[in-house]
Amino acid sequence: MGGAEDTDVTRDAFLGGRLHLFQPRRGYRAGLDAVLLSACVQAEKGDRILELGCGVGAAILCLGARVDGLELTGVERSPRFASLARRNGGSALEVVEADLAALPLPLRQRQFDHVLANPPYYDRRASVASDDPAREAAHGAQTPLVKWVKTAAKRLAPKGTAHFIHLTERLPEILGALPHEMGTIEVLPLAARAGRAPDRFILRARKNGRGAFKLHAPLVLHNGDHHAKDGESYVPSVKSVLRDGAPLVF
Amino acid sequence: MGGAEDTDVTRDAFLGGRLHLFQPRRGYRAGLDAVLLSACVQAEKGDRILELGCGVGAAILCLGARVDGLELTGVERSPRFASLARRNGGSALEVVEADLAALPLPLRQRQFDHVLANPPYYDRRASVASDDPAREAAHGAQTPLVKWVKTAAKRLAPKGTAHFIHLTERLPEILGALPHEMGTIEVLPLAARAGRAPDRFILRARKNGRGAFKLHAPLVLHNGDHHAKDGESYVPSVKSVLRDGAPLVF
Repeated sequence: MGGAEDTDVTRDAFLGGRLHLFQPRRGYRAGLDAVLLSACVQAEKGDRILELGCGVGAAILCLGARVDGLELTGVERSPRFASLARRNGGSALEVVEADLAALPLPLRQRQFDHVLANPPYYDRRASVASDDPAREAAHGAQTPLVKWVKTAAKRLAPKGTAHFIHLTERLPEILGALPHEMGTIEVLPLAARAGRAPDRFILRARKNGRGAFKLHAPLVLHNGDHHAKDGESYVPSVKSVLRDGAPLVF
Repeated sequence: MGGAEDTDVTRDAFLGGRLHLFQPRRGYRAGLDAVLLSACVQAEKGDRILELGCGVGAAILCLGARVDGLELTGVERSPRFASLARRNGGSALEVVEADLAALPLPLRQRQFDHVLANPPYYDRRASVASDDPAREAAHGAQTPLVKWVKTAAKRLAPKGTAHFIHLTERLPEILGALPHEMGTIEVLPLAARAGRAPDRFILRARKNGRGAFKLHAPLVLHNGDHHAKDGESYVPSVKSVLRDGAPLVF
């Protein structure tokens, strides 16, 4: 674990400062999407929560900061991210350093009330492989999206819910990967501006759910027609998710 | 074919009066959805058009009224609707009375530039069967949605497009039924009012298309927050589709 002086790491405020997270200065950095995802999970005290690919723990720790008394477990394959997640979560977060495609047996014997995931947005197979073999080994063999979805479904208790956030262009793939026991699927599209095509979505599905598929009206993130100033243009409901830890109800 | 005095049939104006259609006074009546569907098809002079389950011909005849010089073919299983479609289309519309799940060989040997369909919205299997055996025989064994989608894909020429309109709750089923050769899928959700969950959608898919899936911002049909007066509250773009035969561009 790096010391407080670790210059490759920043310490960033989330939820208006009620949560601070160490994360790498370079590479993937948690932000808006992790917070929005966590805000959609309707967890209650005592619920068991699992995040697949938790990174530094942003989404699951935001959820823990919003709802008291949750049992939080994160799975993370990267030793560096797993170490930062431990540092960020302390005793509140159990971090399992493992590949979600090959979970250790004790985890495979457990069930959770909610599973959430913010899988990588770009398919490694469709992007250019690195010339550096070490780098390629670290980033190359990315877990297929279908595996994320099926692993989440397997780890859910009866009536448990899964939440994913991803690019809209991958929606058919995620819908197609959901096993039959996952129902009552709801999709909340996320649009940068009113009238724009939503480029991301949050999907909720319930194990043993029998409700019809529902597509919600897009959540418009920003006011106005164009980008004004960083972080200053969020609509009130999004602002209160980001700054006050409010839930995102749908 | 019924005479002009047939009291079980009404004659209704479409596209601001540029098209008039005979249709049964009772039972399924074509309306807004057929017109919106036809307005999305980017057909050009000389294109071959096929509508599956064309009913009285509303969608395909609206398309023919909007774009000159199309070759129009409709498939309809019900003798009554097929007869009305012939009456409505005259020499401009070839009507094939057949079950789309068992198309006659000559039709199976043809390809089309555009296939459109407005399949029944409610799954017969999930609704209550009729106690009257004759009625049940006529309405019971409804063609599964997957068959509509696969038949459309099969009848398309390379690069041809399919268009469907359906209930949002059936979107995952239609996406899942699209064969792999259908790509560049775009979905336009239709919402009654701004901010409401879209209850229907129009889907476009291109044979041999390789573009990413795209979810558009919903097309909001009505102005205002609540129902004011029948047909009087359409937003301008929808009004001009319905009254002036304008295309619906997405």
